[in-house]
Parts: sequence; structure tokens; C-alpha cells
Amino acid sequence: MAEETPRATLDEMRALVADLPGPDLEAGSMAATREAQLTKPPGALGRLEELTQWMASWQGKHPPSVVHPRTAVFAGNHGVAALGVSAYPAAVTAQMVQNFIAGGAAVNQLCKAVDADLRVYEMALEQPTADFTRAPAMSDEDCALAIAYGMMAVEPGIDLLALGEMGIANTTAAAALCCALFGGNAAHWVGPGTGVAGAALERKTAVVEEAVARHRGAVRDGFDWLRCVGGRELAAIVGAIIAARRARVPVVLDGYAATAAAAVLFALDPRALDHCLVAHRSAEPGHARLLDRLGKPPLLDLGMRLGEASGATLAISIIKAALACHTGMATFAEAGVSGKET
Amino acid sequence: MAEETPRATLDEMRALVADLPGPDLEAGSMAATREAQLTKPPGALGRLEELTQWMASWQGKHPPSVVHPRTAVFAGNHGVAALGVSAYPAAVTAQMVQNFIAGGAAVNQLCKAVDADLRVYEMALEQPTADFTRAPAMSDEDCALAIAYGMMAVEPGIDLLALGEMGIANTTAAAALCCALFGGNAAHWVGPGTGVAGAALERKTAVVEEAVARHRGAVRDGFDWLRCVGGRELAAIVGAIIAARRARVPVVLDGYAATAAAAVLFALDPRALDHCLVAHRSAEPGHARLLDRLGKPPLLDLGMRLGEASGATLAISIIKAALACHTGMATFAEAGVSGKET
Repeated sequence: MAEETPRATLDEMRALVADLPGPDLEAGSMAATREAQLTKPPGALGRLEELTQWMASWQGKHPPSVVHPRTAVFAGNHGVAALGVSAYPAAVTAQMVQNFIAGGAAVNQLCKAVDADLRVYEMALEQPTADFTRAPAMSDEDCALAIAYGMMAVEPGIDLLALGEMGIANTTAAAALCCALFGGNAAHWVGPGTGVAGAALERKTAVVEEAVARHRGAVRDGFDWLRCVGGRELAAIVGAIIAARRARVPVVLDGYAATAAAAVLFALDPRALDHCLVAHRSAEPGHARLLDRLGKPPLLDLGMRLGEASGATLAISIIKAALACHTGMATFAEAGVSGKET
Repeated sequence: MAEETPRATLDEMRALVADLPGPDLEAGSMAATREAQLTKPPGALGRLEELTQWMASWQGKHPPSVVHPRTAVFAGNHGVAALGVSAYPAAVTAQMVQNFIAGGAAVNQLCKAVDADLRVYEMALEQPTADFTRAPAMSDEDCALAIAYGMMAVEPGIDLLALGEMGIANTTAAAALCCALFGGNAAHWVGPGTGVAGAALERKTAVVEEAVARHRGAVRDGFDWLRCVGGRELAAIVGAIIAARRARVPVVLDGYAATAAAAVLFALDPRALDHCLVAHRSAEPGHARLLDRLGKPPLLDLGMRLGEASGATLAISIIKAALACHTGMATFAEAGVSGKET
């Protein structure tokens, strides 16, 4: 990846976050006005109505549309995987990338089901990040390059971006990020991930605790934490979220790892995630806690905990349905339906 | 409708309910076996995995499929509408049926989004059922005919049936059914429906209380309650559920009114709804209570409260996605992905 990407620094990324565009209030207001005229009791479509207004506000147009949704899956490897924090060997990251390319993973089927374009971004899998119990996971420049790489997922024409990841041991990185950004014991943020329990789960918790303690003194903001205890795929998600905001592309976040990456931006500016929706509440216990901190109610709650943007991609079907109602329904006047009696 | 339908009695319907087929355990087991081999940690797709096994068990085949889903919306009018229990005039039932036919309602857009066949069944709208605070809503034969009519929604070739309703004042009937079948105060089961509040909400509660008290002495089972405080569209939903079970078509129930209709069968035999899934938790407060009684966790929770099978139709997208994963994913062996360590 490095040779295609210009040099970058985290300070440049900080400058981008300080200058994010806001919502298009006029488009949001047009959505609300039309919604009130459609043949249903006011508010009867619940969150589908909220979704439409949110999409209009962040696409900056009315009516909003989802014609070219993209699912972006970033894959990275983690030095801490060698510490035995996952139920699967680190080789599975690359094997699953091959599975994505061959069309055999869950996200492939889900992309077909919702008619989304799937892009898989493999990030130097043969060079895991450093074991962050001993050193920062990435250098400033490596982290900034990974962020810049993630920005490339936002290409002209796409109108909705579902973000997810693949990376053995990355729920350990996610837990470390959450613990660092929001406080609390490591155990509060650590969960089974792909399925660790017993001694392995205790090891995972100890790794998170040790990592946060080690780096606490040297960090000043979320980007520093991303560099110290994150990973390339998590940094890329941060980049994709920033680029999507600038390109007026609403974002759907997947599970614990993807949302923990997004939390880095929240820590810099809580408004930085206003164009992001959390697709679902993962079964990974830290995710519900994280969503509380972010103030983001999930759209779905199906006990999923797969990652690879599976929940985010599934949520595209709900967003499409919301927009279909908003755009296609008749108004009371058009349909000759009597309004509410007072 | 009467001239096309043979004479029927509620006792004939009782006999059908006493003789419902069970699940195909072998098909369910085949689904579980394949699920365990797919390239994901065990259980990582959460409820999507349960959905697949449930679909296999009730379609009686593996792999299960959804190629021809149908959304059936039954529309009926209620004598109690004249008592001012709804925020909308009774004329809206027929007007909304016209809107369904013209393609302007929410359910039309949702059916397009999930590629479901929409059928709307208009049930003698010009002849509302009797005001059930004064007399049974229907005669034994009228109720049985409405059930038989509902059975016609299950035609050869359909592989999933989403059930919903349209009927001004039918959340009053739904509340009366729930209060009668499960006990508790009327206020426990009565909610705003399309948007009543204040004096109208008190009136609605009083109507439910009065209706249940009036008929309590004369009923012996759920079918009697359906006849006394139900409605034609609710009886038709009962019929569609019975017919679907016999034809091995899994059912997706919509909101409060549709689920209250289904509860009539639950009261006769709790296993009678095992082939039914509740699509979503409606914002109507009685629905959550009803789902607790039925032991059915909803698939979605989006604050919807529109009826017209909108939630049930939306849930088809989730079921399709679940089956797509199950059918299309590679196994660990096919993809050359390493399994769980230990």
C-alpha cells in the first residue's frame, strides 16, 4: 500500500477532523415535510422515518437515494494475535480475505442480497502491527497512511458506505481503544470475540489492561490511541468515515471493532459521527456499552458477532426500504384518504 | 365473499387446530449441520442462523428457500369504530384499500423492496361487524367464513407468508382479544393505535373493558372470543395461519392486531404458532406485553406502528438474507480456512 499513497501525518488527519462539513438542514427539512403528508399516521413508520431524514441531511439532497451502496471490508493483522487472544490462528485473516475474493463468506451473500458493491482492502497482512503490550502498534506515519488508505474506499458515485473489518485479534484492539477512550476496567470492554473463554479470556483481558497502562502516559488524543493500540484496518475505517463525511456519503458502521474505530473520532469531536449509523448491536458485550457512550441506538439487534461488515450490509436493506416508502408512497391528497380527526 | 365460500362452522375450525402438522425435524437438523461447517465462528450470525433452521423445519426441506413470498393484507370494518375509538374515520379502511390497489401505501413500496407478491383482501367493508359492547361482533358462521376466507391466501407455490391487516378501530378489537385471552386490566392492553389520546383513549379503554365483561360468561375458548370481540380481518389472519401450517408455509406476523389474532390460536394450543415468527415489536405498548405472553422475541424493533403488514414485509428481507448466507457461504473445507484452535 505504501508506494501508492502519499506521505501523511496524524496532524494532517487532525486538521481534517477539525474541518468536517455539517448536515444539510434544508434537505432534512424537506424530508420531514414530505413525510408528514404520506398516507400513514404521523410517525407510524418509526425509525424508517428517522432514517430518511438522516439520509437526506447527510447526502445533502431530497429525496435521498441508495442506488450505489458500497460495503468496504478492511483486513489487517495484529501483533497481539501471537499472545493467544483469539480462538483462531492469525493465518485466518488472509484465508478469509481469499474467501471474500472467492465469494464464499457471509458478507458476499449479504452484498448480493442488498445489491451492494463489495470491496475488500487487504492491508499488509504479512506485516502485523507491533505487539502493543510492548510498543505502539504503529508509527505516526504508518497510522496516518492507513487512515489515508481507508479514504480511498469513498469513490465518486457511491451513495451509502457500510464499513467493516476482518482481523484476527482485533476485538482485543477494539477493547483496548474503548478502555483507553472511555475508561473503566479492561474486563468491562473485553468479550469472547470469535469465541475465547476461560484462561484465554483472562489473557485477553490482561493484554488490554497492560496495553492501556503502558501507553497512557504518551498519548494526548484519540488518534494517538489509534496509533498505540489500534490496527491498520481500524485506522482505515477512521479514514473512510472522514472521507465519507467530506463526500456527503452516509456511513453504516458494523460491530464492535468498526464502532471502536469510529469512537476515535467521537473522542476528538462527538459531532464527527453524526453522519454514521450503527447497523446493529453485536453480541460482543462491549458493543452495547460502547453504543451507550456514543449515544447511538443500533438499527438491528440480531445477536450477530461476525464482523466483516455483515451487520452493516444487512442494515442497507432497512435503509433502502425506508427510502422506498418515503419516495414511493402517495400523499393523503393524492390518494384521497381522509386525514386524522381532531 | 360469502357466495364463493362454502358454509363453515367454528367447530370445524377447532377440529383443524387439533390436527396441525409438526415441524420437519430432519430438515431442521440438516440446516444445523450445514450451519456448523460454514466459514464463521459457530453462532456468529446469531438469529440469522435460527431463522434458517426454523425455515427448514417448517418448509420441511433443506435448504429452505424464499422465492415466492406473499404479503397478505386483510381489511375489515368494525362496529365499535362508531364509538370514537380511533383517530381516523371508518371510511379510511376502504380508502386505504384503494391506496393499496393504486400502489401508494407503505406496504406497496416494501413489497417491491423485498420482491413480495402483495394481495389485499377486502372483507365486506360496507357491513361492519356488530358493536361488540352490545352484541357479539360476528355470528359463529360469519366468523368461520372469515377464517375460511383467510385460508385462501395460502396458494400453491408460495414459500413464505407475511400477514397484516387494515381496519379502523382494530387495535380496540386486538386489545379486547388480549385482555380476554390473557387477563389484566383493559388499560394494560389499550394503546394509542393510530394516535388517540386523552378522552378518546379513556373511551377506548372503557369500550374494551365493557366488551370483555359483557361476553365473559358466554365464551369457552379463543374462537369464541374471536367471534365476540374480534373482526373479520382478524379471523382471516387466523385462517391464513392455519392454512399455512398445513401447506408448510412459514408465517411472518406483523404488529399488534395481527399478533392478537394469532394469539387466539395460541390460547387453543401454544404449539399452533410454532411456524409463526413475529416480525417486529410495534410501538403500540400492548404488543410487547403480548410478545412476552407468546414467548416470541421480535425480529425487528424499529418503533413502527402502521399495520398493513409493513413490519412483516420488511422482515422478509432479513429472512432472505439469512437463507442467502446459509445457502451461498463456503464451508471451512471448501475455502481452506483454518478452524477454531483447541
